Amino acid sequence: MKKNVTIIGAGLVGSLLSIYLCKRGYKVNVFERRGDMRKEDMVAGRSINLALSDRGIKALEEVGLMDDIRKICIPMHGRYLHHADGTTAFQPYGKEGQFINSVSRGELNCKLMDLAEQHGAAIAFNQKCNSINWKENSIEFEDCTSLKTQTSNFSLCFGSDGAYSAARLTHHLQHDRFQYHQYYIDFGYKELNIPAGAHGEFLMEKNALHIWPRGNYMLIALPNMDGSFTCTLFFPFEGNPSFDSLDTKEKVKAFFEKTFTDAEKLMPTLQEDFFKNPTSSLVTVKCFPWIRKDTFALIGDAAHAIVPFFGQGMNCGFEDCSVLNSLMDKHKEDWSAILPEYQSLRKPDADAIADLALNNFVEMRDKVADPKFLLQKKIEAAFSKKHPDKWIPAYSQVTFSPHIRYSNALVNGRRQEAIMQEIMSIPAIETKWESEEIEKKILEKLNV
Amino acid sequence: MKKNVTIIGAGLVGSLLSIYLCKRGYKVNVFERRGDMRKEDMVAGRSINLALSDRGIKALEEVGLMDDIRKICIPMHGRYLHHADGTTAFQPYGKEGQFINSVSRGELNCKLMDLAEQHGAAIAFNQKCNSINWKENSIEFEDCTSLKTQTSNFSLCFGSDGAYSAARLTHHLQHDRFQYHQYYIDFGYKELNIPAGAHGEFLMEKNALHIWPRGNYMLIALPNMDGSFTCTLFFPFEGNPSFDSLDTKEKVKAFFEKTFTDAEKLMPTLQEDFFKNPTSSLVTVKCFPWIRKDTFALIGDAAHAIVPFFGQGMNCGFEDCSVLNSLMDKHKEDWSAILPEYQSLRKPDADAIADLALNNFVEMRDKVADPKFLLQKKIEAAFSKKHPDKWIPAYSQVTFSPHIRYSNALVNGRRQEAIMQEIMSIPAIETKWESEEIEKKILEKLNV
Repeated sequence: MKKNVTIIGAGLVGSLLSIYLCKRGYKVNVFERRGDMRKEDMVAGRSINLALSDRGIKALEEVGLMDDIRKICIPMHGRYLHHADGTTAFQPYGKEGQFINSVSRGELNCKLMDLAEQHGAAIAFNQKCNSINWKENSIEFEDCTSLKTQTSNFSLCFGSDGAYSAARLTHHLQHDRFQYHQYYIDFGYKELNIPAGAHGEFLMEKNALHIWPRGNYMLIALPNMDGSFTCTLFFPFEGNPSFDSLDTKEKVKAFFEKTFTDAEKLMPTLQEDFFKNPTSSLVTVKCFPWIRKDTFALIGDAAHAIVPFFGQGMNCGFEDCSVLNSLMDKHKEDWSAILPEYQSLRKPDADAIADLALNNFVEMRDKVADPKFLLQKKIEAAFSKKHPDKWIPAYSQVTFSPHIRYSNALVNGRRQEAIMQEIMSIPAIETKWESEEIEKKILEKLNV
Repeated sequence: MKKNVTIIGAGLVGSLLSIYLCKRGYKVNVFERRGDMRKEDMVAGRSINLALSDRGIKALEEVGLMDDIRKICIPMHGRYLHHADGTTAFQPYGKEGQFINSVSRGELNCKLMDLAEQHGAAIAFNQKCNSINWKENSIEFEDCTSLKTQTSNFSLCFGSDGAYSAARLTHHLQHDRFQYHQYYIDFGYKELNIPAGAHGEFLMEKNALHIWPRGNYMLIALPNMDGSFTCTLFFPFEGNPSFDSLDTKEKVKAFFEKTFTDAEKLMPTLQEDFFKNPTSSLVTVKCFPWIRKDTFALIGDAAHAIVPFFGQGMNCGFEDCSVLNSLMDKHKEDWSAILPEYQSLRKPDADAIADLALNNFVEMRDKVADPKFLLQKKIEAAFSKKHPDKWIPAYSQVTFSPHIRYSNALVNGRRQEAIMQEIMSIPAIETKWESEEIEKKILEKLNV
């Protein structure tokens, strides 16, 4: 008989996972702490959009959802840079025809919940996980409206309740020798808005991820289906300038006018939004173990919260589902074999993408504005085009190469970076980077 | 008016801290989760002894306690190595006349509680900290015998309740952007016993810390006042051999006979002790912030639990008290100035000793058995003797130099190690290490 599965959290990963399991005939109950977002207004400043790329797409395709999801995606072919001096530049993400997709987190989540219910999953809302009893395999949920508690039994349980997972906390506090790391960067983020034009048109290039790199901080903008852009300011909590120092509407306006001149002109509600929308923090969580025997596993952000700078949080969580799926095939749904292998496969990959994501913040906010860095990317792209079997740029390994594990992408990327550091230190590299001499040098170094 | 101070935890650091504060006229209430160890039998296998060294001694001297404590200390002048081939060797810890002190954790704690009460502190036992209300400055304690709860108010509170601090947990869960790391090594420890001889005499060298280094694991023994030694086996949880694999009395006996031959002969209750005494785990905890405004601070293991391999856990906690004391002088007991400076001074030092302690495990269990390593220590000692102003060995910086901060000792030690790696790679170094050539080389490298 198929197991009775409980999923804690009906976010992106929990909803997708429920579809995978329903398709295999499991009886799935999902418990979500929040209300049903399909019936309620979105919380202000939580309209975030995400970058869906090949790993996430692969997982959605596996369960036949991608045709549905593609309808709410906007392709972004590269970074559109808005420099401090007013000039702009376009930097493609990969090869011709490669792109990532801007998708509204809320819309995608709603769609996945609809599809989960269509596949037979039952989703209960306003259910807060208070504690899990690991001997009885039961969970106490508290109804956030009536405050009544109920106990729910499971034979298999997934904790997919996000970066601040209650399932992880009860697992953590009752587990001997639990490895746990939570690390906040000194930067927060705030969502802002660039509305559509008078006729619903995009007021900046639609098919790109816009970045205003400013050294220690940055503004980004991703397109929405309605012609607007959701902007996110990644900014220090303290210091000058910071969320702390911009404490009046006047200061906000003056700072944006000076620092993000072209964007500010397109943000009529900037001052209101800035003080209405919350300032959110950015956490990395690493923990171990993720599982308990054949009965429990953490998945998605609950297992491995990462910062958003590689656009991989959701993609990584979706890939967790896809890996679990292939292990269900391999082990014929024997969960005592599936869960340990899921953990040993995914833990190093989750650690790797966490580190890659932290590193990418410096790249996005600072290096992309450096001509030397841009030259380096150009040399890599040219070499990669000539020798696609020998060199896939690190960004492409992570974003467009779901067959390469994150942990391998991290190692490969470090090796490439070491080689490129040597190449970039060659005198007058800017004049001869297209020469055969340089190509040979790179080939040599690759063969060491 | 002096503040009303609450201390959570009457362990070594909580008890010492209460004495510091009572001496300055504060009204101090200490709440301890356990029963009064002065009235109860020690828990089996928890008779651990600790190495009291100069940082801890300095703190005890400051409040005039060292004369009392010295009576229960046994000096240890160096490491007494018991090699696998049956040979032994003695390795001094520092210069002539430098030593660390074996002291019973239980006895020391009892003495500090006695002294705390004599100085006016009130200690309540069996009081479990359930939660802290940061707005009301109140703590809910639960009496572990009656299960009744009481609320206690404070104007200043210290969490000194150890590595698994309840105070830290409630602080953590209610603090935005709390940095938290807990890391368990794959090794546990178990206490064993070498009793005194028939006439109360020591059956091994009394004034040394005995080590049986065996590569991946080790046994150590510290002398007790009654002629016995408390032994500690640091051993993998899993693998072969491990706590897991030694699962019968016969296997334990055979393993000890073969691996720790001379020790086993002195351990008549080995087989009983091995299965009666608990296997404990070894955790490193790093967190931030340690304080809340002028009302709360973590101290000792609650702020920075470390592994025991540098013998600095207690010494570091005592040094926390001593640093607080000097800041009370500096800031005239203005706690809004004391606590932030305490945190910014001690956090980097606590991080440094945590890393040093982890590194020292490899040194103790493995490197001390390597002739090349012993030669390196000999070269360092000889150079240090000739140039005491230029070179203090890393171990001595940490153990015998309370004027050097842990964070500086870590940096200095790394630099020294880099220099010694170069020196040790000189061909035929073993024949010419006492030459002027080598002395000059080290001097040169120090001047770079």
